[in-house]
Amino acid sequence: MSVPSNRINSLTSLTGELRALLGDRVSTAAAVRAHHGKDESYHAPHLPDAVTFPETTEEVAAIVEICARHKAPIIPFGTGTSLEGHVMALHGGVTVALTNMKKIKRVSAADMDVTVEAGVTRKQLNEHLRDTGLFFPIDPGADASLGGMTATRASGTNAVRYGTMRENVLALKVVLPDGRIVETAHRARKSAAGYDLTRLFVGSEGTLGIVTEVTLRLYGIPEAISAAVCPFESIAGAVDAVILTIQSGIPVARVELMDAESMAALNRYAKLAYPEKPTLLLEFHGTPTGVREQVDQFRTIASENGGGDLKWATSTEDRAKLWQARHDAAYACMAMRPGKKVWPTDVCVPISRLADCIAETKRDLDGSFLFAPVFGHVGDGNFHVTFVLDPDDAKEIAEVERLNERLVMRALAMDGTCTGEHGIGSGKMKFLVAEHGEGVQVMRAIKKAIDPDDIMNPGKVLRV
Amino acid sequence: MSVPSNRINSLTSLTGELRALLGDRVSTAAAVRAHHGKDESYHAPHLPDAVTFPETTEEVAAIVEICARHKAPIIPFGTGTSLEGHVMALHGGVTVALTNMKKIKRVSAADMDVTVEAGVTRKQLNEHLRDTGLFFPIDPGADASLGGMTATRASGTNAVRYGTMRENVLALKVVLPDGRIVETAHRARKSAAGYDLTRLFVGSEGTLGIVTEVTLRLYGIPEAISAAVCPFESIAGAVDAVILTIQSGIPVARVELMDAESMAALNRYAKLAYPEKPTLLLEFHGTPTGVREQVDQFRTIASENGGGDLKWATSTEDRAKLWQARHDAAYACMAMRPGKKVWPTDVCVPISRLADCIAETKRDLDGSFLFAPVFGHVGDGNFHVTFVLDPDDAKEIAEVERLNERLVMRALAMDGTCTGEHGIGSGKMKFLVAEHGEGVQVMRAIKKAIDPDDIMNPGKVLRV
Repeated sequence: MSVPSNRINSLTSLTGELRALLGDRVSTAAAVRAHHGKDESYHAPHLPDAVTFPETTEEVAAIVEICARHKAPIIPFGTGTSLEGHVMALHGGVTVALTNMKKIKRVSAADMDVTVEAGVTRKQLNEHLRDTGLFFPIDPGADASLGGMTATRASGTNAVRYGTMRENVLALKVVLPDGRIVETAHRARKSAAGYDLTRLFVGSEGTLGIVTEVTLRLYGIPEAISAAVCPFESIAGAVDAVILTIQSGIPVARVELMDAESMAALNRYAKLAYPEKPTLLLEFHGTPTGVREQVDQFRTIASENGGGDLKWATSTEDRAKLWQARHDAAYACMAMRPGKKVWPTDVCVPISRLADCIAETKRDLDGSFLFAPVFGHVGDGNFHVTFVLDPDDAKEIAEVERLNERLVMRALAMDGTCTGEHGIGSGKMKFLVAEHGEGVQVMRAIKKAIDPDDIMNPGKVLRV
Repeated sequence: MSVPSNRINSLTSLTGELRALLGDRVSTAAAVRAHHGKDESYHAPHLPDAVTFPETTEEVAAIVEICARHKAPIIPFGTGTSLEGHVMALHGGVTVALTNMKKIKRVSAADMDVTVEAGVTRKQLNEHLRDTGLFFPIDPGADASLGGMTATRASGTNAVRYGTMRENVLALKVVLPDGRIVETAHRARKSAAGYDLTRLFVGSEGTLGIVTEVTLRLYGIPEAISAAVCPFESIAGAVDAVILTIQSGIPVARVELMDAESMAALNRYAKLAYPEKPTLLLEFHGTPTGVREQVDQFRTIASENGGGDLKWATSTEDRAKLWQARHDAAYACMAMRPGKKVWPTDVCVPISRLADCIAETKRDLDGSFLFAPVFGHVGDGNFHVTFVLDPDDAKEIAEVERLNERLVMRALAMDGTCTGEHGIGSGKMKFLVAEHGEGVQVMRAIKKAIDPDDIMNPGKVLRV
């Protein structure tokens, strides 16, 4: 992709105004710019001209107003754990790091909701909630900021039971591209009052405004929680067991597939000794009786599909270890080729097509020279191929591009999506068009209406 | 509100073109226009100039194209059961009745989803699903069309467990105001691919386009279902029992409050003999053991809050009778003043404020001369005051307006919404502004971007 040159007329005047506003909470230091010009993906870094660290919504609004006057690109930054180049400053400009906005503004145990500043991370929130009997379930693996998770419509391991950010954001405070501050909703659990602005900003990846506060649904910590690891004879058997589990209406809280390659990587990385077979990682939430019922039902399904014995993790500590291992899967894959990067794909298909989609994808991968384990949140029909590659090797890049394109087109042909949870960023813009067709024109009309000068995270999601 | 005169230049040429397209599926007969110019509310009818009955999405697109060329208002019409004047032709124009679009296009038992044409009603759908073991839970009472339910972001009795149309629409086919046809999403359960067009059209009340096809989530019919009626000594006790039920995480499928006045109306209308006390109507879904657990937990909560014995309805027939009675509540209220209309209010507040909101509202009503029972979907914090009034009596209208405004402002002050499920229509436009403030400007920008000539259901939701 060709990157137009920086559009800012006078960088000196811009940073001068920002400094007058923020003092030393503006940085043009190379290291700071470098840190904020890349995410966890293979995408090449693009540095912003300056990085700002506001502490309030009003400061964010003031930064945006200054940038808008200079027509300077604005790039919101949470923790930089995105995977499709969302935070790269493709056209230079000013990164707005929400790092200092980490206040938990209110918790209502009675209403089971919370309002946090956008820089609060999911682990910080759950730590804060520890004594309330409540928790926030959405868990994309990384300890991402809740503003970033909102912006990418994140989901992760618990989504099969608790939904994604789409279902769990009640309201947002957003700074628009002209500096106006908007609250998208009140705290009622449901509303039929006008267009759904909350859902419009969830998943908009910073291209329509900057999320500065998030009001989220919380859930009671279940009375009983059991996690289990279940190896299977074949990947087809494991996938069929998942499909049957979902179709039987077992309210499983987590059901993660790991192929044999990812289990091997995990064993090596985290010094574990799981069977190196296709494996399901599961978690059941409910009353003690309810969990027992779920487990019995699942055990029958597993044994009919070549599943082995369930290895249990019931204590909080054992469960934490198990899920940490799952979250480390991408790092474990990377460690198999030290010094390399990962390119995680992210399709999602209707559950009835999941077995076919994974089988066809595995056939593709078997024919490739790349190391590419498969794992994912299969209860939703969502899975990842984690390509471990050398981003400087054109042959490897070309091979991933070829396989990724085949995978996306396969998922779209199966009535699925090019991204279940990672988002479009700059990496999947062409697939957005393949997926939505004429719908992209509607998205573009909305973008133009809200951000006519294309200053909010330009070069992401949509070409304007 | 002043209604500008009809904006159509040449009605003869417009109807001529429509007739060329649709033959006798265009009507300008007074009776047909009258039927389509009103909904179930107290709002005065406004007749369209013509009513069209398309049979395919392509025909809808062709109608819209003709109307767009004539700058004629277009009003989508499902079953006319809306409650805030959504279908009134305030500026004349062409009603697009989806009445003939009643095909169920596909059902996937494996994916638990279905695609229907917009004119399919919820009862028709559930009848069709009868042998699949699946059902569609959203139930606003009326046998509304699924297109209409999408347009108003409907919810109803089951929303406390299964969510509203917001959570249960997977994808839409929409005809835009210029005749283009857009599909908002594929069938994957989750997606992070671009702006959430599905959620943008859900609740847009026909002001951004016409929904012609809806893809919906389905659910397995629970193994065990029990419904119960539980009278309470006081309305405060009943509300507190609901709040505790929700806060305890009991996954109740329905929990409806009826005040003593509505129970009396119901007894008289449906020849029932329930105690004429504040009452909860409940339904529990789950495995047989799970339902027993839920019932035991609820019974404890009820007895600690002045609840009496639970009267059970377990057979399908008894449950159907119970919920039909609940759905008839508005008609039962109307029957208390034969020949009058209803004005049902519709606020929704965080559950922690529900008891206060209902208590303050009851105090207001006690001081009024109007008959105004209170009932609603209190598990969501959503309730209705059903004013029974003579719409030709200015004094009664003024009194409802006064009480409704006080109720809405009370709900907004409690961080609630002016409408939990009925929508804005033409009746609540001023409250949309009170609720969303600056957010209405964002909605307006979207409306202008998608419908620049304001031909889609003009005079609803937003003033352009």
